[in-house]
Amino acid sequence: MRITELGEFGLIDLLAKMVSESEAKQPRNPRLIIGIGDDAAAWRQSDGIQLATVDTLVQNVHFSLDTILSWRQLGAKALSVNISDIAAMAGVPEYALIALNLPGDTDVNDVTDLYRGILDIAKNYGISVVGGNMSNSAMINITITIIGSGREDVVLQRSAARPGDVVAVTGYPGYAAAGLEIITHGTKLPEEIARIMRSHFYFPVAHMIEAQALVKNGIKACIDVSDGLLADLSHICRASGVSAKVNIDSLPVDWRLIRHAGEEHARELTLTGGEAYELLFTGSRENVEAAARDIVIPVTIIGEIIPPITDTIILHDKEGRVINIKQYGWQHF
Amino acid sequence: MRITELGEFGLIDLLAKMVSESEAKQPRNPRLIIGIGDDAAAWRQSDGIQLATVDTLVQNVHFSLDTILSWRQLGAKALSVNISDIAAMAGVPEYALIALNLPGDTDVNDVTDLYRGILDIAKNYGISVVGGNMSNSAMINITITIIGSGREDVVLQRSAARPGDVVAVTGYPGYAAAGLEIITHGTKLPEEIARIMRSHFYFPVAHMIEAQALVKNGIKACIDVSDGLLADLSHICRASGVSAKVNIDSLPVDWRLIRHAGEEHARELTLTGGEAYELLFTGSRENVEAAARDIVIPVTIIGEIIPPITDTIILHDKEGRVINIKQYGWQHF
Repeated sequence: MRITELGEFGLIDLLAKMVSESEAKQPRNPRLIIGIGDDAAAWRQSDGIQLATVDTLVQNVHFSLDTILSWRQLGAKALSVNISDIAAMAGVPEYALIALNLPGDTDVNDVTDLYRGILDIAKNYGISVVGGNMSNSAMINITITIIGSGREDVVLQRSAARPGDVVAVTGYPGYAAAGLEIITHGTKLPEEIARIMRSHFYFPVAHMIEAQALVKNGIKACIDVSDGLLADLSHICRASGVSAKVNIDSLPVDWRLIRHAGEEHARELTLTGGEAYELLFTGSRENVEAAARDIVIPVTIIGEIIPPITDTIILHDKEGRVINIKQYGWQHF
Repeated sequence: MRITELGEFGLIDLLAKMVSESEAKQPRNPRLIIGIGDDAAAWRQSDGIQLATVDTLVQNVHFSLDTILSWRQLGAKALSVNISDIAAMAGVPEYALIALNLPGDTDVNDVTDLYRGILDIAKNYGISVVGGNMSNSAMINITITIIGSGREDVVLQRSAARPGDVVAVTGYPGYAAAGLEIITHGTKLPEEIARIMRSHFYFPVAHMIEAQALVKNGIKACIDVSDGLLADLSHICRASGVSAKVNIDSLPVDWRLIRHAGEEHARELTLTGGEAYELLFTGSRENVEAAARDIVIPVTIIGEIIPPITDTIILHDKEGRVINIKQYGWQHF
């Protein structure tokens, strides 16, 4: 079977199963808290926990030289999307390793610009760039590993959603995907609004402060929206052994998004648009509302967690009519 | 300027300088001990130090599907060469993150075989595979991050070589390169000897035990031979601010290598052949000889560290005649 037939998440499940079977044959590392299957791995050390995550941007898959703003922007985004994985677990990023694969005819100034973008973000988050690797390659590949720290009692996990929780999301998860559409196909939007959406695509923000506010208010379950809202909600549901209901009339779809895309496509961008890096989380209504008051960007309650049923996610409208889901977001294979 | 003109090590120097300039503008992380420029990064934690390293195998650069033995072998090698970076600093590898870029038409069985190879080695070294990333890509890329632990007082560093030290190397650094020649071009060697050399290329061993023996015997400076003996010795010299003399009549060139390659080419394979993953280290003659007695594989003294002169490395023969160096080993650009 080809991996496209199995799908990205099927393949990850298969490999995760191999790893746990392999580890079952020997004593498991007693310090390990979270292995494969969350935004980052976590293990105990004497003063708190350590978190680690890795992510790759592949040329012509995650970006193309036609759609980047500059190499500096590409570098900034590459680091930000990695920080987002640590932030979504309420961790603090500390160290970064940068593995670059570059064609030999790449201009040195482009590489230093890429590093400038990485260092802009590293500085802003107090991250030390401590090492890396450099390889020749036909295509550009940027793989970044971030190691950070956290506290075991407050780590946000995909597996912590419980029936009765409400589901909430920060910001406008459709903006980044709309931004990419605007970059590639243009828009009828006025430039000052188009710029907002392009910025969400070019310069996604890792919501570290917001995740700390979630923790402060007793939220336990969280993921960052990288594959798309529905796909990432399904990751939470699968990890937690629950299902979810989403009210499509409660989605954070604002007039800007509708003016760009029309109502139906605006909703689609919000449900399935990738690379948003907003925080998607669940908790009691009271805790979610308290967290929302502590967070500057908008927080929208979009649904609720229910006991597990056949469908991982049920979409419905405000009258309770069930809506058919065509597509769950981005899979790599 | 294209990066091929600047060269891999020139580019790494340039980027390392940017990082240190960027960090000079803010308080440097006081826990950081070793940043860019050694086999692994190191920082203090409350109980010892943490080490981290990343390495990528790129299809048609580091391996080709024509020359691997199997996907399982490729997985084993990918993890081993990463462990080697931690081992060369006298660290103990603990956690691995696996970032795979694969074409969509890759067979699922090939991917699970790759993971089997990774898990074979992980088990052997007590490493937990805790996470990773999966991307679609035209070419296969395997990027592995390893996080391990060590002790600050005994960490082996590239920068610790001092004039008066002797230079020594474990094993036969030319075997792996001879192995690749045998795989691609065949050999007149009997099969039982050819197999030894192929094994060194297919299944390089990370010398964790040997590095511990170096530490026990007071050795401070070490690197693993990945780019080639001369290239890696020049990394030690540059990091330590010293030069080195190498006696080409003292090299570990055995009859097997000579029978495969002839005397001159055997020497060339030993000086410039990459992917050997032997330990190259320096220390007082007494300490090196004591370490050699603690190590099962052969240890050969090949030269000495001298105060810095114009040439980073001087090659000479047993009569003291200086030999011209044409090539310092593998650079990526």
